[in-house]
Amino acid sequence: MPILRLALAQTNPRLGDFSRNVLQIVNTAVEAFGQGADLVAFGEMSLTGYPIEDLATRPDFLRETRTHLEDIATQIAASGAGSIPVIVGFPHGPLDDHHANSGSPSAIAYNSAAVLQDGRIIGIYNKHHLPNYSVFDEYRIFRAGSDALVLHVAGADVALAICEDIWREGGPVATIAEVKPSLLLILNGSPFEREKDEVRLPLVQRRAEQVNAPAVYLNLVGGQDDLVFDGGSFVTNASGKVLARAHQFVEQTLLVDIDVKDSTTNGSQVGPGVVVVEAGAGNPQRSTRAKVSPEIAPQLDINEQIWDALVLGMRDYVEKNGFRSVILGLSGGIDSAVCAALAVDAIGPDRVFGVSMPSNYSSDHSRSDADDLAERLGIDIRTEAIAPLVDPVETQLHLDGVAAENLQARIRGIILMGLSNAEGHLVLTTGNKTEIAVGYSTIYGDSVGGFAPIRDVPKTLVWELAKWRNEHARTKGLTPPIPENSITKPPSAELRPGQVDQDTLPEYDVLDAILDAYITERVGRDVIISRGFGVEMLDRVISLVDRAEWKRRQGAIGPKISEMAFGRDRRLPVTFTRN
Amino acid sequence: MPILRLALAQTNPRLGDFSRNVLQIVNTAVEAFGQGADLVAFGEMSLTGYPIEDLATRPDFLRETRTHLEDIATQIAASGAGSIPVIVGFPHGPLDDHHANSGSPSAIAYNSAAVLQDGRIIGIYNKHHLPNYSVFDEYRIFRAGSDALVLHVAGADVALAICEDIWREGGPVATIAEVKPSLLLILNGSPFEREKDEVRLPLVQRRAEQVNAPAVYLNLVGGQDDLVFDGGSFVTNASGKVLARAHQFVEQTLLVDIDVKDSTTNGSQVGPGVVVVEAGAGNPQRSTRAKVSPEIAPQLDINEQIWDALVLGMRDYVEKNGFRSVILGLSGGIDSAVCAALAVDAIGPDRVFGVSMPSNYSSDHSRSDADDLAERLGIDIRTEAIAPLVDPVETQLHLDGVAAENLQARIRGIILMGLSNAEGHLVLTTGNKTEIAVGYSTIYGDSVGGFAPIRDVPKTLVWELAKWRNEHARTKGLTPPIPENSITKPPSAELRPGQVDQDTLPEYDVLDAILDAYITERVGRDVIISRGFGVEMLDRVISLVDRAEWKRRQGAIGPKISEMAFGRDRRLPVTFTRN
Repeated sequence: MPILRLALAQTNPRLGDFSRNVLQIVNTAVEAFGQGADLVAFGEMSLTGYPIEDLATRPDFLRETRTHLEDIATQIAASGAGSIPVIVGFPHGPLDDHHANSGSPSAIAYNSAAVLQDGRIIGIYNKHHLPNYSVFDEYRIFRAGSDALVLHVAGADVALAICEDIWREGGPVATIAEVKPSLLLILNGSPFEREKDEVRLPLVQRRAEQVNAPAVYLNLVGGQDDLVFDGGSFVTNASGKVLARAHQFVEQTLLVDIDVKDSTTNGSQVGPGVVVVEAGAGNPQRSTRAKVSPEIAPQLDINEQIWDALVLGMRDYVEKNGFRSVILGLSGGIDSAVCAALAVDAIGPDRVFGVSMPSNYSSDHSRSDADDLAERLGIDIRTEAIAPLVDPVETQLHLDGVAAENLQARIRGIILMGLSNAEGHLVLTTGNKTEIAVGYSTIYGDSVGGFAPIRDVPKTLVWELAKWRNEHARTKGLTPPIPENSITKPPSAELRPGQVDQDTLPEYDVLDAILDAYITERVGRDVIISRGFGVEMLDRVISLVDRAEWKRRQGAIGPKISEMAFGRDRRLPVTFTRN
Repeated sequence: MPILRLALAQTNPRLGDFSRNVLQIVNTAVEAFGQGADLVAFGEMSLTGYPIEDLATRPDFLRETRTHLEDIATQIAASGAGSIPVIVGFPHGPLDDHHANSGSPSAIAYNSAAVLQDGRIIGIYNKHHLPNYSVFDEYRIFRAGSDALVLHVAGADVALAICEDIWREGGPVATIAEVKPSLLLILNGSPFEREKDEVRLPLVQRRAEQVNAPAVYLNLVGGQDDLVFDGGSFVTNASGKVLARAHQFVEQTLLVDIDVKDSTTNGSQVGPGVVVVEAGAGNPQRSTRAKVSPEIAPQLDINEQIWDALVLGMRDYVEKNGFRSVILGLSGGIDSAVCAALAVDAIGPDRVFGVSMPSNYSSDHSRSDADDLAERLGIDIRTEAIAPLVDPVETQLHLDGVAAENLQARIRGIILMGLSNAEGHLVLTTGNKTEIAVGYSTIYGDSVGGFAPIRDVPKTLVWELAKWRNEHARTKGLTPPIPENSITKPPSAELRPGQVDQDTLPEYDVLDAILDAYITERVGRDVIISRGFGVEMLDRVISLVDRAEWKRRQGAIGPKISEMAFGRDRRLPVTFTRN
């Protein structure tokens, strides 16, 4: 029974920032070599960042990736750490051929893991299953791999898989099971979702039992656009017992010793569909190193997980896009209060700027609650009255009713964008998932902004998170950041005198339950009625949702006359820093 | 050699508008029966409209579709026309099972064609190849079919295929060839693209030769969001000669008599992978009807095709979404002039409203060219000076430089949206593909609007289309709609004194050539340099494009914490009429 020492690097790559990612991979690998690791592994697409979207279809980007991959191998070898295998996720493009995937003519690369050793690429595993649902578009941009890969290292057989490969029955895991591997190593780029934790562990436990070997679930960490990779990498033994677990939401290299079965391949090829790669005797310190005790990080409660995911998502969006600061409207309401508190937790109070933009319809508590919030958070707040800017437009264009209400929201948008342009802040838009779903917002008004911290948070959860965050502060003896009044008062857009949200919307607990059924579960009207919701209210909500979808699509549409048009075809991720 | 009379219905379905689509299908089928047709066919997804995006994943929508499909069969039979087969495209959902596609867990339906006869569904063909590139996301939402379908009717074998099925080697066409069919009938939802015409015909000719039988290419027509289906359905004989062709951009039922080989199946099953469906003896008038002479509609020149595609795209977006009218800013420049001319061709001058919004930096010709345009088009124009609305904001916020320039564009956006809200117009945003690609526009400013008529038209093509449209008017003895001065003067955003586009952008012919290489061809820097473009200019353009992509993504991003979030997961098409 060999003991394998693995260094599992849960990193936060910057998309397309090769120099930074290469440096981190090399340094981590060299350090792990010094700690006696037999194998170092990084997550899915750890060289480039993930998801790379249409960059995967650009031959120039793929060639550049290959150059950097070879450079990593060279640098590690030059540092004297070349004798152990280092596994790095990367998009594996054609070097001289351009055969397209049968599924998607533009797909030319695989989603792959390279095994680096002795300054060379000694093996490449290509992901078999390409997810193309929810946030994933991999079938669009990647080709599907076909062979399994087993790494023979230190007397053990380490079989590779990438993310979706373990979510499907059959496929590489079934092939791998026949080889009777010593270990199953799964590289992931698995985004955070509420309750996903409860799905991942049982799945990996099942795969460990299936291959009758310990399994390693190695994840990325960090925010990339609207995805948040939560880390939380872990190792189970063959019976599914958790042997080690990394923290969620932070970069960490987990060093773990695992008792594994002897190799059955002994480095020889075993048959069709499996490539066996010889990766040597493991770390030269194997015989002398003392066993490490594995870390098992505690799991966070669900509200803390969500809060941390939102904080990390915002921090990485701001930092990776090179913003110095954020600006947002502070209305005294719960949404802007929660967004401001998230921003302070993400980037600190000195980089968060609030603007109170009272109108003639704003209540006194709007202003006082906003001031209270700014004081609790220690952030800058300024006041820009909107009446002097709204009145000339309203008068010149003779606007009233909804047109005049929208105008107030749009003037606020102009103020935030003007200050953003003048002072360089990223504008935060504070809409929550519920109001976005039902279109309870003004296009080019309160929807203005470059980042929407709570756009995937239903209103009822906004309140819950606010209460959780205040309580979290109290347990640490700190000032609760969110004014109690912002949590308890009835929500209002304050676009006309005495307006409250429930003038036009159902109670939020009912509304969120209907939206969850209609949008998330995709169940039909009949099913929702059978759960006890009133027909009239249900139909009103459904028509609001359909109408909001229609509003949301405005401004993105125009007739297409060429093979490549914007918006749909061109899906380049953010790859550079704004200067 | 039987003669088959086909009625090929090139329809413009309204997405999700079942009552209208059902009525049209029934009426067309009954009329075709009276004209002696042996078979009536409609295009891909002709029952629901296309693309249906995430509606394909909603069981309630799929059940409703099935009900309407059965209703069509019943109604046709009740009209006495039930004895001939009628082929209708529809999403074929599970009636009682919910097995997901292995590719995409949310996909539960097939993209299918139903054969209706005698009040029943007598056969269903499921599309094999699901395109998932460019504008297509079918692998995301559909399951893949596996069997070929041959319809035995009037002594002939008619083999079915749907769109992408003929674009791939192998697959159903290879299977069909072995059956030696009398005819290959291909239902399509194939969007217009420049030069696509030159690809479709040779492809269909090749398939006709491959199966050694005449081939029918039946397309949809009409605009749906950013797609324009151009129609242009056609029939070739087994050697690829065009026997009949429908017009582009209009609804039409093409009635055509085709000499075909005798059936080889005689209605019996022929082996695995092929389903043979018995569809009777054809039209009762077969023995007495006189032969019809086929129509071969002339092909349009490329500028007329593009113009007509843009007109149809706008008309259908306006009509299908229930707008009465459109409004747009008229700057005197070429982009707004072309958009206004397109709008008038799409919905008529009475429904088009122009707004001249001069600033202190607007030249005299801006106003006079806008007035000239409005007069030529016969549309309403009003003037709203922006200085009285810009000044208070600029003063209160102390804006200057780019922030002040953007403010002017944003005040114009507020004016258009205010008038839209007050008067019910759809706002047109007039940006062209070139300026969108390089980010030469103001977010929430000139980019404001619900429909962007020329967002896929490069600047050089905007000029070319303007000249073509004027010449087209002249050849008909009509007033050219676009002022000559708008075509010839140097383009300018007029956001500061004396500004012209070429202060900050390369000449448009150079710029468009670089964008075409970098974005459409996806070729790298080295290749573009080898074509003779200067390195410095190229790098400037590439950095503008990357930066513009970054700007374009603003406002859509926020951390995702649930399985279903908006924007990526939820892709509902516009399915209802706004009231």
